[in-house]
Amino acid sequence: MLHNDWMRLALRQAELAFEHGEVPIGAIVVHKGHVIAAAYNEKEQRKDPTAHAEVLAIQRAAEVLGSWRLTEAILYVTLEPCPMCAGAIIQSRLKQIVYGCADLKGGATGSVMNVLDYTLWNHRVDVVAGVLEDECSEILKSFFRRLR
Amino acid sequence: MLHNDWMRLALRQAELAFEHGEVPIGAIVVHKGHVIAAAYNEKEQRKDPTAHAEVLAIQRAAEVLGSWRLTEAILYVTLEPCPMCAGAIIQSRLKQIVYGCADLKGGATGSVMNVLDYTLWNHRVDVVAGVLEDECSEILKSFFRRLR
Repeated sequence: MLHNDWMRLALRQAELAFEHGEVPIGAIVVHKGHVIAAAYNEKEQRKDPTAHAEVLAIQRAAEVLGSWRLTEAILYVTLEPCPMCAGAIIQSRLKQIVYGCADLKGGATGSVMNVLDYTLWNHRVDVVAGVLEDECSEILKSFFRRLR
Repeated sequence: MLHNDWMRLALRQAELAFEHGEVPIGAIVVHKGHVIAAAYNEKEQRKDPTAHAEVLAIQRAAEVLGSWRLTEAILYVTLEPCPMCAGAIIQSRLKQIVYGCADLKGGATGSVMNVLDYTLWNHRVDVVAGVLEDECSEILKSFFRRLR
């Protein structure tokens, strides 16, 4: 499967968030060619400030693998991660992250800051940006249009 | 109560982490003069890369208050937060954080980077550093000495 195909699954998660009245961001974790975790933003439903799609997907992937080390896994997420999620990516030793659209107001893998790019971390994460960028951006715009 | 008194409670959590074989870091959340959450690092026990003391304390505080907004709360933590935890502090809109010793290899509230200090965040967090610094540092040194 190509990055686009996996990102469609993350987008499906974002759609579920939308249906639940949450800011529509979705994520999946792929390990050795298989989806081992999927999650969407549940901050409002859970009343939990840490319940971003990426954090939930990482927690579920760690549970599936029985380890906090996700060194062979790839995270697909529809929006560029915030500092908390970029930090969770470092903590979990993910091999690669692939995101849809950039977050110019809060993105922490390049847009506002780059949490991943510090030589002191003993781990390097590969970043791929802009996969299904338009679709990932459009679902967010559509959500905020509906709010107004 | 003074910062030192609250930090002693966070240190007690760090001691619990030590007893469980975890890197000894502890945190509490204080809201309007009362402790509403306490947690210690449980990364190894839970096999969860996000189970740092700060994240767990923030999650528990949000559950107690029934809201992801912790705008009136203060987090006490024995070690300077990593990027993930500094990001969780932004997400939860904590009023203030107070930490014990700096983390020169990974601290994200000033030592290696400052995740909190971006004008684009719509929230300012007050930071107090160096409270019971020696005790907070000593328990970590003691843990790593024992590992070797």
